[in-house]
Amino acid sequence: MKLHQLDNQISDLVERQVPGHSLEQMFYTDPDIFEHDMHRVVFNQWLLIDHESRIANRGDFFIVDVAGDEIIIVRENDDKINGFYNTCRHRGSKVCLNKEGNKKSFVCPYHAWCYNLDGSLRGAQLMGADFDKSTHGLHECHLNIYEGLIFICLADGSPPNFDEQVNRMQPFMDLHDLANAKVAHRYSWRLQCNWKLVIENFIECYHCLPSHPELSSVHSKAKYKAFGSGAASAMPEAMAEFEPELQAWRKQASSLGYTIDMWGDDENSGSLQGAQRLPINFAEGTLSETRDGKLASTLMGKFSACDGGTTAVSFNPLSTLLMPNDYAMIFRFTPISAEVCDVEIVWLVDKEAQEGIDYNKENLSWLWYQTTVQDGEITENNQAGVRSRRYKPGPYSQHEASNNTFLKWYLRLIG
Amino acid sequence: MKLHQLDNQISDLVERQVPGHSLEQMFYTDPDIFEHDMHRVVFNQWLLIDHESRIANRGDFFIVDVAGDEIIIVRENDDKINGFYNTCRHRGSKVCLNKEGNKKSFVCPYHAWCYNLDGSLRGAQLMGADFDKSTHGLHECHLNIYEGLIFICLADGSPPNFDEQVNRMQPFMDLHDLANAKVAHRYSWRLQCNWKLVIENFIECYHCLPSHPELSSVHSKAKYKAFGSGAASAMPEAMAEFEPELQAWRKQASSLGYTIDMWGDDENSGSLQGAQRLPINFAEGTLSETRDGKLASTLMGKFSACDGGTTAVSFNPLSTLLMPNDYAMIFRFTPISAEVCDVEIVWLVDKEAQEGIDYNKENLSWLWYQTTVQDGEITENNQAGVRSRRYKPGPYSQHEASNNTFLKWYLRLIG
Amino acid sequence: MKLHQLDNQISDLVERQVPGHSLEQMFYTDPDIFEHDMHRVVFNQWLLIDHESRIANRGDFFIVDVAGDEIIIVRENDDKINGFYNTCRHRGSKVCLNKEGNKKSFVCPYHAWCYNLDGSLRGAQLMGADFDKSTHGLHECHLNIYEGLIFICLADGSPPNFDEQVNRMQPFMDLHDLANAKVAHRYSWRLQCNWKLVIENFIECYHCLPSHPELSSVHSKAKYKAFGSGAASAMPEAMAEFEPELQAWRKQASSLGYTIDMWGDDENSGSLQGAQRLPINFAEGTLSETRDGKLASTLMGKFSACDGGTTAVSFNPLSTLLMPNDYAMIFRFTPISAEVCDVEIVWLVDKEAQEGIDYNKENLSWLWYQTTVQDGEITENNQAGVRSRRYKPGPYSQHEASNNTFLKWYLRLIG
Repeated sequence: MKLHQLDNQISDLVERQVPGHSLEQMFYTDPDIFEHDMHRVVFNQWLLIDHESRIANRGDFFIVDVAGDEIIIVRENDDKINGFYNTCRHRGSKVCLNKEGNKKSFVCPYHAWCYNLDGSLRGAQLMGADFDKSTHGLHECHLNIYEGLIFICLADGSPPNFDEQVNRMQPFMDLHDLANAKVAHRYSWRLQCNWKLVIENFIECYHCLPSHPELSSVHSKAKYKAFGSGAASAMPEAMAEFEPELQAWRKQASSLGYTIDMWGDDENSGSLQGAQRLPINFAEGTLSETRDGKLASTLMGKFSACDGGTTAVSFNPLSTLLMPNDYAMIFRFTPISAEVCDVEIVWLVDKEAQEGIDYNKENLSWLWYQTTVQDGEITENNQAGVRSRRYKPGPYSQHEASNNTFLKWYLRLIG
Repeated sequence: MKLHQLDNQISDLVERQVPGHSLEQMFYTDPDIFEHDMHRVVFNQWLLIDHESRIANRGDFFIVDVAGDEIIIVRENDDKINGFYNTCRHRGSKVCLNKEGNKKSFVCPYHAWCYNLDGSLRGAQLMGADFDKSTHGLHECHLNIYEGLIFICLADGSPPNFDEQVNRMQPFMDLHDLANAKVAHRYSWRLQCNWKLVIENFIECYHCLPSHPELSSVHSKAKYKAFGSGAASAMPEAMAEFEPELQAWRKQASSLGYTIDMWGDDENSGSLQGAQRLPINFAEGTLSETRDGKLASTLMGKFSACDGGTTAVSFNPLSTLLMPNDYAMIFRFTPISAEVCDVEIVWLVDKEAQEGIDYNKENLSWLWYQTTVQDGEITENNQAGVRSRRYKPGPYSQHEASNNTFLKWYLRLIG
Repeated sequence: MKLHQLDNQISDLVERQVPGHSLEQMFYTDPDIFEHDMHRVVFNQWLLIDHESRIANRGDFFIVDVAGDEIIIVRENDDKINGFYNTCRHRGSKVCLNKEGNKKSFVCPYHAWCYNLDGSLRGAQLMGADFDKSTHGLHECHLNIYEGLIFICLADGSPPNFDEQVNRMQPFMDLHDLANAKVAHRYSWRLQCNWKLVIENFIECYHCLPSHPELSSVHSKAKYKAFGSGAASAMPEAMAEFEPELQAWRKQASSLGYTIDMWGDDENSGSLQGAQRLPINFAEGTLSETRDGKLASTLMGKFSACDGGTTAVSFNPLSTLLMPNDYAMIFRFTPISAEVCDVEIVWLVDKEAQEGIDYNKENLSWLWYQTTVQDGEITENNQAGVRSRRYKPGPYSQHEASNNTFLKWYLRLIG
């Protein structure tokens, strides 16, 4: 009912947002708008949630929280992974009380209804002859695997075409071969802020110099000025400054046979996807996103020599990969409620790399662990300030061009 | 105002619930429906809250929380116990800050308005000549005593006829003589779940085998299959299996002069009452609901020899007694808010029984303490799962026939 | 939207409140009414929040929480103190993460927008040529200094005329010369109650005898009966009892050249101001509001000899000074949310007084620290009792005449 009221008002709300500015307070705090966001935006995206090496064996599972719902991700067999809502078809109890583990089947702790790993109802004691087990399997969510990556979609109806969403990433993904990667480390944060502030923080680097000393010391400052907020933000003078470094790196990368492509969807796209390869800090000979600029693990995929580049692949604003030559990171941003959002980084390395020999977790995760802790504080302070009665949407700089695009995309989808 | 809006919608909501299925999510989570539940259902029942031996002396009192309100239960004299809302008639302060104790009068800690044990305003300093003390006594709730049991009713208007409610229980209550019992032990839980899930959990034994190993090991399995959800759930084949045990026990109990009656109201009744006597585990010679099947205390009331039976008396779905021959338990289910419910068990023994000699608390409470801890986890997991956006009302088995009856009764009352 | 709905109903709500009685429950618990209270009442008052000696040096600042907003109070220079909302004009982040300290400027921790101590935007990196810094200074609140006291007003539009508000206090303030005072001690409490219950508690002394043994032992009991709730509450017989003590004191005070005036606004005033001088306990020779009745510090302002009086100055119901001859207390009552209110006492002494020699904090604060802890418990119990479904507005005694006036004033402003 509330949602229905909102439907009548949402077009007015969308209409009055000022282009080039952050949104009005209620978009960051209102529970009804949050629910609307979920149904209009988040549940219609293919959310990248983890790497399939996390659940290598039949019956391995984990639970991911999405917007107040628990989704069970479970391996049915070598070729199939499924996603189920954690609610029994009998009286609604959670069927799974563990956050991860291995199960032969899911037996509801209440009345022992038993579900197979494909979600079908195997047994329900004493339900009588008329009861049709075939219509009482666990509620399933859409799930697909691409290059070892697990994607789910919580759409009530049809999800976006998965192949179209991922195939365009192939030239980039080929290089890194994540299908042959494994999870090396992970870290997650539950932030007290709206999910859009997390994304707005992630897609611009206007804040990097003041806020991220470690990140800024590893990466090329000229690059951040030119490309900090994606290709669209490249101002002529900043581009001119970065151009020599970029061209030198591109020449080397191309000679090694690696793509140097770069593209990004505009606000009229379905998922605001983008992909690019850029040098980390070519002038300084930086090889990877690490404290000392050296590799943190063995080269992955097709990299025979390190080109000092890093690849960004964004399937949608909530699902991004950052990949130097030697490791990859899944950045998972998952809305929980109007003022709560989960952030998780999953670090991947080549599946043959050995911990303690080829890599260690601390070195692997150092740069982005520091950076994400800082971003967590930043976004929580952003949320706190937005709660002020006097908060007014403020203007974006050209370095926040991608924020502008993100909000136009968002407002189009919810309008 | 919200409630008024709900009134317009409630008949539609009630209409669309599917018979034989659990309710839609909002019935378990919505604060407005909770408030409606209180006024239409809970406040119109005589709630069994404790045994009068708890407050044996003039001025003894305790506070019980009901749906966010504190009710002071206080002994005025040997014959009279009263119930008052814990809010001063002056400016609304709590008049009593302790959860239990003994008081000569209730003196408001704010301006020292002083109330007698009958709730009348004894003194209010400096209120002037026009002030009428007689119209400023504490707000009282309906209260009645039956066989030593304290019942309250929070109806704004007239409560249900108390004598009618309790007199039909007399044949069962005569046996146990709770008027000559005393409180031996108590335990309470504040559960994070809607009150209806607590009741739904309590009135069926479809979950007992998977969830309650202790309870199932003490009680006859054949009985649970036949009578787990009350007489209405008795399926022919399960009844047939249990019949020999039942008849053998009935023969013995009757020969001792004890009632073997069994009856239950249907959904058109005012309070969905029921009462029955059944063997605990006659085949195994079990005498009481204890770990070893032996008596935990002295025989109560009219029991001259133990018949191995147990009596269930339900005054309404929130107020039930379970009574083997040697002890009795009050099960108090008290709604607190939409997603919070209190559960309390009060263990009673014969007033002459001596702790350490005739009984000890651990042995007395072992079976139902274990069982109720398990039920607490079950119902909280039920609530958690029901919060899922994909939760849908599911079908009851015949073993949950009493749930079906309970929900029909509930929907009729709120509609 | 909610607020808009409330606007349509508020006149009916106001209309049905019974004169001479406390308010209906929703006025103490409803978040929408709270927001309405803020805009109609609290934000239109000059709130006394601290003494300027707290921020003696350029760049000294502290943050005060008002109704969910953080206000930065900062000294710009010797003559100027400013108040700013803690939200960046860029994307809304808090610009200040510390509760107090010293800053040369406020640099937003997000994108390093830098604000001068006058709130103007000094620098915003990379914002492009079109960006107008002059229109992106921090949102300011109204702020004024009077006799060293810092007042803020959060009105959207024009605040009440400050000079009119304070000048009428001059005869009283001249005596105490707070411009030459300094902060000696402070204590604050975050109470779980509505702001109006805090004020209602503070403005009557009907509760003092039962609730405040220390306060009652220091002050004249006859005075509390006559003047406990302000001059308006003075009942003839109580006045007659107190008259000799009052006249004796007035004679002495006048002979010393100190004002003995006394006045209070009625409910039709803008700010319900009042001021008075009364003896503490003239019959007992009490000199100050201390445990032993002796002075706790050096005489302040124009006091050459102690007259045993105490001055109360109320700029509005949220902003009051209590001042014996040797110290002064700011009582700051600041609404936070519907059921939360901050209370702070700031103890002031003459700026030349030396801690450990002329005064010590424990002795200085003893009486009102005890009393305010007691009042905190009282008001939280009041709030708890008002939450009862059976709470009904109750009648005020004549000793609560000032409560009656306060509520009439409040209802007029919100109506």
